[in-house]
Amino acid sequence: MQFSCLLHGGDYNPDQWLDRPDILAADIDLMKKAHINCVSVGIFAWSRLEPEEGRYDFDWLEAIITNLYQNGISTILATPSGAKPAWMSRKYPEIRRVSRDMTRDLHGKRHNHCYTSPVYREKVRQINTALAERFAHHPGVILWHLSNEYGGKCYCPLCQQAFCGWLREKYGTLDALNKAWWTDFWSHRYSSWDEIEAPVPAGEESVHGLNLDWNRFCTHQTNDFIRWEAESVKAVRPDLPVTANFMYFFDELDYYTLKDSVDVISWDAYPTWGENEESEAEVARRFAFNHDLMRSLKKQPFLLMESSPSATNWQPVSKLKRPGVHMLSSMQAIAHGSNSVQYFQWRKSRGAFEKFHGAVVDHYGGSDTRVFRDVAQVGERLEALGGLIPTCNRSQVAIVYDWENLWAVNDAKGPRNCGLKYRETVLSHYAPFWKMGINVDVIDETCDLDGYRLVILPMLYLLRDGFAEKLRRFTDQGGTVVATYWTGIVDSTDLCWLGGMPGDGLMELFGLRSEEIDALYDGQYNSIKPQQSGLFPAKDYRVSELCDLVIPSTAQTLAVYGSDFYAGRPALTVNQFGQGEAYYIAARAEDAFQEDFYGALAQKLHLDRALSCTLPEGVTAVRRSGDSFDAVTVMNFTPTPQEIRFPETAEVWETGAPVNGALSLAPYEVVVLKLAASSR
Amino acid sequence: MQFSCLLHGGDYNPDQWLDRPDILAADIDLMKKAHINCVSVGIFAWSRLEPEEGRYDFDWLEAIITNLYQNGISTILATPSGAKPAWMSRKYPEIRRVSRDMTRDLHGKRHNHCYTSPVYREKVRQINTALAERFAHHPGVILWHLSNEYGGKCYCPLCQQAFCGWLREKYGTLDALNKAWWTDFWSHRYSSWDEIEAPVPAGEESVHGLNLDWNRFCTHQTNDFIRWEAESVKAVRPDLPVTANFMYFFDELDYYTLKDSVDVISWDAYPTWGENEESEAEVARRFAFNHDLMRSLKKQPFLLMESSPSATNWQPVSKLKRPGVHMLSSMQAIAHGSNSVQYFQWRKSRGAFEKFHGAVVDHYGGSDTRVFRDVAQVGERLEALGGLIPTCNRSQVAIVYDWENLWAVNDAKGPRNCGLKYRETVLSHYAPFWKMGINVDVIDETCDLDGYRLVILPMLYLLRDGFAEKLRRFTDQGGTVVATYWTGIVDSTDLCWLGGMPGDGLMELFGLRSEEIDALYDGQYNSIKPQQSGLFPAKDYRVSELCDLVIPSTAQTLAVYGSDFYAGRPALTVNQFGQGEAYYIAARAEDAFQEDFYGALAQKLHLDRALSCTLPEGVTAVRRSGDSFDAVTVMNFTPTPQEIRFPETAEVWETGAPVNGALSLAPYEVVVLKLAASSR
Amino acid sequence: MQFSCLLHGGDYNPDQWLDRPDILAADIDLMKKAHINCVSVGIFAWSRLEPEEGRYDFDWLEAIITNLYQNGISTILATPSGAKPAWMSRKYPEIRRVSRDMTRDLHGKRHNHCYTSPVYREKVRQINTALAERFAHHPGVILWHLSNEYGGKCYCPLCQQAFCGWLREKYGTLDALNKAWWTDFWSHRYSSWDEIEAPVPAGEESVHGLNLDWNRFCTHQTNDFIRWEAESVKAVRPDLPVTANFMYFFDELDYYTLKDSVDVISWDAYPTWGENEESEAEVARRFAFNHDLMRSLKKQPFLLMESSPSATNWQPVSKLKRPGVHMLSSMQAIAHGSNSVQYFQWRKSRGAFEKFHGAVVDHYGGSDTRVFRDVAQVGERLEALGGLIPTCNRSQVAIVYDWENLWAVNDAKGPRNCGLKYRETVLSHYAPFWKMGINVDVIDETCDLDGYRLVILPMLYLLRDGFAEKLRRFTDQGGTVVATYWTGIVDSTDLCWLGGMPGDGLMELFGLRSEEIDALYDGQYNSIKPQQSGLFPAKDYRVSELCDLVIPSTAQTLAVYGSDFYAGRPALTVNQFGQGEAYYIAARAEDAFQEDFYGALAQKLHLDRALSCTLPEGVTAVRRSGDSFDAVTVMNFTPTPQEIRFPETAEVWETGAPVNGALSLAPYEVVVLKLAASSR
Repeated sequence: MQFSCLLHGGDYNPDQWLDRPDILAADIDLMKKAHINCVSVGIFAWSRLEPEEGRYDFDWLEAIITNLYQNGISTILATPSGAKPAWMSRKYPEIRRVSRDMTRDLHGKRHNHCYTSPVYREKVRQINTALAERFAHHPGVILWHLSNEYGGKCYCPLCQQAFCGWLREKYGTLDALNKAWWTDFWSHRYSSWDEIEAPVPAGEESVHGLNLDWNRFCTHQTNDFIRWEAESVKAVRPDLPVTANFMYFFDELDYYTLKDSVDVISWDAYPTWGENEESEAEVARRFAFNHDLMRSLKKQPFLLMESSPSATNWQPVSKLKRPGVHMLSSMQAIAHGSNSVQYFQWRKSRGAFEKFHGAVVDHYGGSDTRVFRDVAQVGERLEALGGLIPTCNRSQVAIVYDWENLWAVNDAKGPRNCGLKYRETVLSHYAPFWKMGINVDVIDETCDLDGYRLVILPMLYLLRDGFAEKLRRFTDQGGTVVATYWTGIVDSTDLCWLGGMPGDGLMELFGLRSEEIDALYDGQYNSIKPQQSGLFPAKDYRVSELCDLVIPSTAQTLAVYGSDFYAGRPALTVNQFGQGEAYYIAARAEDAFQEDFYGALAQKLHLDRALSCTLPEGVTAVRRSGDSFDAVTVMNFTPTPQEIRFPETAEVWETGAPVNGALSLAPYEVVVLKLAASSR
Repeated sequence: MQFSCLLHGGDYNPDQWLDRPDILAADIDLMKKAHINCVSVGIFAWSRLEPEEGRYDFDWLEAIITNLYQNGISTILATPSGAKPAWMSRKYPEIRRVSRDMTRDLHGKRHNHCYTSPVYREKVRQINTALAERFAHHPGVILWHLSNEYGGKCYCPLCQQAFCGWLREKYGTLDALNKAWWTDFWSHRYSSWDEIEAPVPAGEESVHGLNLDWNRFCTHQTNDFIRWEAESVKAVRPDLPVTANFMYFFDELDYYTLKDSVDVISWDAYPTWGENEESEAEVARRFAFNHDLMRSLKKQPFLLMESSPSATNWQPVSKLKRPGVHMLSSMQAIAHGSNSVQYFQWRKSRGAFEKFHGAVVDHYGGSDTRVFRDVAQVGERLEALGGLIPTCNRSQVAIVYDWENLWAVNDAKGPRNCGLKYRETVLSHYAPFWKMGINVDVIDETCDLDGYRLVILPMLYLLRDGFAEKLRRFTDQGGTVVATYWTGIVDSTDLCWLGGMPGDGLMELFGLRSEEIDALYDGQYNSIKPQQSGLFPAKDYRVSELCDLVIPSTAQTLAVYGSDFYAGRPALTVNQFGQGEAYYIAARAEDAFQEDFYGALAQKLHLDRALSCTLPEGVTAVRRSGDSFDAVTVMNFTPTPQEIRFPETAEVWETGAPVNGALSLAPYEVVVLKLAASSR
Repeated sequence: MQFSCLLHGGDYNPDQWLDRPDILAADIDLMKKAHINCVSVGIFAWSRLEPEEGRYDFDWLEAIITNLYQNGISTILATPSGAKPAWMSRKYPEIRRVSRDMTRDLHGKRHNHCYTSPVYREKVRQINTALAERFAHHPGVILWHLSNEYGGKCYCPLCQQAFCGWLREKYGTLDALNKAWWTDFWSHRYSSWDEIEAPVPAGEESVHGLNLDWNRFCTHQTNDFIRWEAESVKAVRPDLPVTANFMYFFDELDYYTLKDSVDVISWDAYPTWGENEESEAEVARRFAFNHDLMRSLKKQPFLLMESSPSATNWQPVSKLKRPGVHMLSSMQAIAHGSNSVQYFQWRKSRGAFEKFHGAVVDHYGGSDTRVFRDVAQVGERLEALGGLIPTCNRSQVAIVYDWENLWAVNDAKGPRNCGLKYRETVLSHYAPFWKMGINVDVIDETCDLDGYRLVILPMLYLLRDGFAEKLRRFTDQGGTVVATYWTGIVDSTDLCWLGGMPGDGLMELFGLRSEEIDALYDGQYNSIKPQQSGLFPAKDYRVSELCDLVIPSTAQTLAVYGSDFYAGRPALTVNQFGQGEAYYIAARAEDAFQEDFYGALAQKLHLDRALSCTLPEGVTAVRRSGDSFDAVTVMNFTPTPQEIRFPETAEVWETGAPVNGALSLAPYEVVVLKLAASSR
């Protein structure tokens, strides 16, 4: 789905200011001044919308939406389920979650209702229906914002019961479950379904299959709740789209499972620009990865639903954005596929938990602030970039980042309980492409591999049913695959593959067997010494943490370990498999290794870059491809001026000014180039 | 109120040794040897005083008090409420606290009864009355020691109910409360009084107004309990004074609210002399501040109620006091306004939690120990310093240290959740005066400003009703006020001031508006560069953590930032306001800045010093003023000899030996000088 | 008791593979290949053995045991109480523990049944009896493995009640208990037995006597449970021995109290070879100490019941063993008195908590692995070393390591709450003997001192009744005793000794009194300066953490403090007492001090060494003495070759090759020498 313009706006809470008509009036003026065209309303307004059970008060909301509409501002309308009213918590204890310590929450905070409770579902259905009946056909309303930042787990009896039901459906018999969970270990065999309890510290936590299925169930149950909400509003008007705002590296919920329950993906991004221990480029890379992930979910443009126009108030340090950084941060989202820049929040609340969270309008109330001017500039620019809407990023490279794998890896006991670092590993394999300006899709094991040239599997510990076969077919047909140590260890129920690892036929794909894996203490190192392979420079690279000791069968050794008792044994191998090649990186290497290795591979595989040149450190370029024109966003994430030279003919998107192969970028500057569409 | 001599003694627990008459007899001999004239008795003796419900056994106590009296030793008699007997905990569960995790305590430890429980109050009233009837007129008893170190919170239903009642009284209507607490945020609006619960992790913690009021209520309820105790003993003899021992930087209770419930302020000081990471002078400064705070509560001399004659047993390291340090530490209290040096404890207990806490008499039992000799020397000296009793410290400078502000600052989300450091900031503004030998009062926002020349507001985030007006009047009439960043942000219900900060008219007082505040990560720095203002030397000072970006209206810029995008913007300003001046320090500066700034200000305002000279690093002097003579205590907190020269004519207090403008101090030495009374 | 050969094998879990006869068959072949002669079976098999209440299924177990037996492999048969079946937890909640937070566990994990529950005891008795009736006379079964790694505490009402009963029996009257626990402190006097509760955070934790007695009771109750298990199997066949596997430095249970409840001591050792911050020699020393402790319990050879053939999966880092290390680690156990090398585990489980724990057989399943070859080599060597069985280590030196002292020291408040480091102190007094190749017994205060020449008391804070008298007699008759600071502080009920410390007559033994003890912050140091005593070189040694200030009466000062106000005061003394000598080390000294001091003492007392020579750093030698021959195991714990020269005539045990006074050791090599029996 597409909107008619790039959206610019954010969370708007007029419900906090109903007794201040002067402020509500000022809001409209200020919004226009800031080039706002769309706001999200009603996100935590339940206690205003239903002040007592069954009595709805929607008039104030209608006045707001209509007024916005009459002033040219669209509304993304929220369902209010993100925070339940106090009267409901008090009357229906079952809607409050039971936490991992098995005590039931009192009332308070937000994002903490039971996803299973029939009472809560019914209350949500009723108010959603009423909201839809009143507003779904309002011309100002363009999208449903379902609840807010879904997340969390509930351990109440209703959820436990639903979990049992879900397990029965999945396994059919207790015998099958006992086998899949390997319950003979520590005498954990279940003899009755009702003996099964969710994993908690005071109970069972040592059955990996149980832990994994509990994670799956929690995503399932949340998804079920999302669909429940979606259906309640779609029943009134099926064609009004819905979204749910997702979050940064949110481990709890498998977003790949959730993606089809919403019409458009949206997410909340809060980069920590200006950190002391991480450069702007490193921060940019982490967020680029998440933007790419969100775009990859549906392989369509997404919405940046929340971001801070200045600082946040919940990070350890609320650092102000340096001049230019707000534009840069906003444009980064656009470059990676967002069709919006939305803020949390429009105006700072006067009291409570987020009263110091950055906003377009400060407690001060005026527009003569640095932040307001920054925001208005972004608004102006987005208006000029409306032509980007039909474009989207295309990728020849895919990195597998899989939630089920994440859960299983993080739950594995051994080989490094002090840190397996799945996320960091994935990012270190993503970084080289970001630096080269090569688009990457972030996929999971359920995705198709068709169309990619290169598929990367960092620590793909858990192989879901059929994925190894997909990989073999992909490689056989000419694809290139790269895997690392700690890949192919367990199956989809977290049982180890027998007969040699990587399992499920991957020994054949990579032409080797992993005999054992050495874990290094922090501060211990080994090295990778490339052999004469011609693939990359013969220099040594430092490795740490995990060193896989493999025995090649058909694989060719490209690099070896430099020290310890396994000095000389393979550290990097390649195996010809059908028309393709399968690389295996046996150890956790420093970033330079990944850079050189993927640099060589990019050249070998002729991977498309956004611009055909080498980019300076801290600068990247991202391409959104269109039918006739592509947009290449060039971003300088450094505090110094940068210069780049490239062979393509281009012009500045907004001005049409020609750019003849050379571009100067001020500190933190971002330039959007218009190029002829790439041939792909 | 005053006692006839400087008190010297401490906590005495004969109830632990009733089966050892030999030890009780030895105690009297040893006390005389140690120049003890006053002990505190019965502090945790309830299980001995009321061994079973309703049966009091006071005979042993009378024998002790009488024997002490006959040997010239007064008694401070405790009410026993600090620790309840086991039989009472068992029979009346309601007297045991409910903790923040909403579970009720079992029996054990101390300081953990419910302040609301009618049962506990009645039990306390009964035994206090009985004690008073037996002992209030005993000639040996000079003071009531109410309970011990009041503190802590209870979350039981009785307390919750009392909280609700307190809120109803305060706000009148739910609407008023909802508005004051900004409950529309996150849909937290209450629709019934009984929906309100105390803030706990499993419930509500995100409503700042609730958190703040809960803190206020807990002080209120504790105060109510203290008054209940005081009334129960005063009903028998109204003129026997009461005290309650306060504690070092005790955040939980607003001592300014409690001060009128006792007749004399007393407190327990346990300086950590000999630390590795803090010099003796730094430790001295922290404790000097607390002594000054205790004196400022009633603007009268106070009592040092507990201190260790050697080490404690509850700090991370129980370091022995170096020779001279016990005298120095004891005299520091006297210098800042104490009329006593009391110890915890007279004799070490044989068993349980504090058996290794320092005491005058060790398990060994003899007087031939270093510690005993140190104590006896202090006793002798206090006898020679009896003339100090009618003197007291006077201050021209006040630093605002306000508990409600403390609670609000520490609860604020942002701008530096990793540490706002209110306490450290206050201390860094106190330090320069300590170094110069200038007396300081520590006041809160309820105090009068009359009589001060300089009032300092470090991080005065929360402005109580009327305080800004008081500041404006004070400055208008010629006073000087200094504020820092993060001042004037919220009102008394923790709602942000609208229309610009610092709020409530302080923009006018300081002649500026704070536009935004930058938070720096640990390890990030900026600098303050003084302009040609003549106020202090033109050198740069390092700043960190918080940098306020202000826009002056009428204020004059005295110093600017040295780097980052706000280089050149004001970092220190002054505003002429009526007859006075208002300074604004925009960033957290290194100590040297405060030293130079307040040094210049002291000169400009002609602030009185204890001695008219510059004191060496680690040496300070404190003046207690009398009608005809002042006492100036000069203290060397360094391990090396020090020399000072000053113009005043003086003599050594105890000996009358003349001191003609020069004084040599041995390591850790303390000298009390007698000077003509200052003219003030 | 003795077995006919050195045992080689480990935990075997066929119950996890009952549906894989191919794997069960392969197991037998692989065991033979690995020279396995004994496996432990059934350790966590309860849910397989009693799949529903009262229905036992032992047929599969009989098939396994018989098959093993027919293939020459013995069985150590486990009782299954280490993990209860889920159906039992569900039906009988009382068998689940109540934890320190006073909530009852849900079902899960292992090692968490209530030791008091009559229901659990009865269920255990029934299945143990049934197992014994079926298997106790099976020719393949050689030993009972009672449960697994007993440990943990339960706070349920049944345990609390049993605790009260135990206390009544111990103290007789409440008065006696009140006195022993010094309950007048903080008004903690009990007026009824049922007021006593186990120490928990929400209740009482400040009565040291209560804490100590609770620890004693938990050992008592565990021991009672162990005896219950032992009796249930011995009732069927009294002469089949039992063991229970103990653990490394397991603070919870006083193994000296447990030792007589089993026929043979066994324990589980998991050295962390290859750590970054500790050398192999340091790791070796820690484990040598524990091996010696296990041997000292019964002064007989013990069994190494568990060890990892490669890495563990539960330590922070699962580091592989370097070549040679598995042999070295296994032989270290043998050297210190083990008659077995058993592994956890034979084959890796496919799923759940320990699926990556090292095993002889990997998921791979083949014998062509480095680990399998390492194991087979150990098996071969153990076969060649069968002659060691009748030998055992003999010691002239005893170090007191006492659990009651450990509990009391760790519970003491002061003088260094940031770390008293009892364990580290004991190890630093053990280390010199390990380096010299001198056997040490690790005893507690209940042990006889007869036969030792040197008894060492590191931080013997708590003196049990009669131990001081034993020490005086030992010294009087010519023994040498060495004590440190913080010795002789409390009696057996944790009451401080009055009249001077070290108490109970030890002032007389050591000829001094401890006046006070200074605690140093981390980073603060003092020094020990030896005087002209001729005992050891006159160099200075660094001291830290604790400095005892003693006043000698009859003791002679051998070394003094180097700095601070107690410079020149005694830091090391010796006192002639009867025919013997008593040394007192007043401060925590660096290792070099202990090395030089005990080196001199070893020479003075003519202590026997395994070999009459100085051993290189990281090399040690341990002697097992037999009737005609002794075995001296020489171990190189360094990664470099080492050479030693010694005067004794010897030959290599396995080959008979003569070793004429010189021995070269490869990195990590271990050599067993045969020498003529020592004369002792």
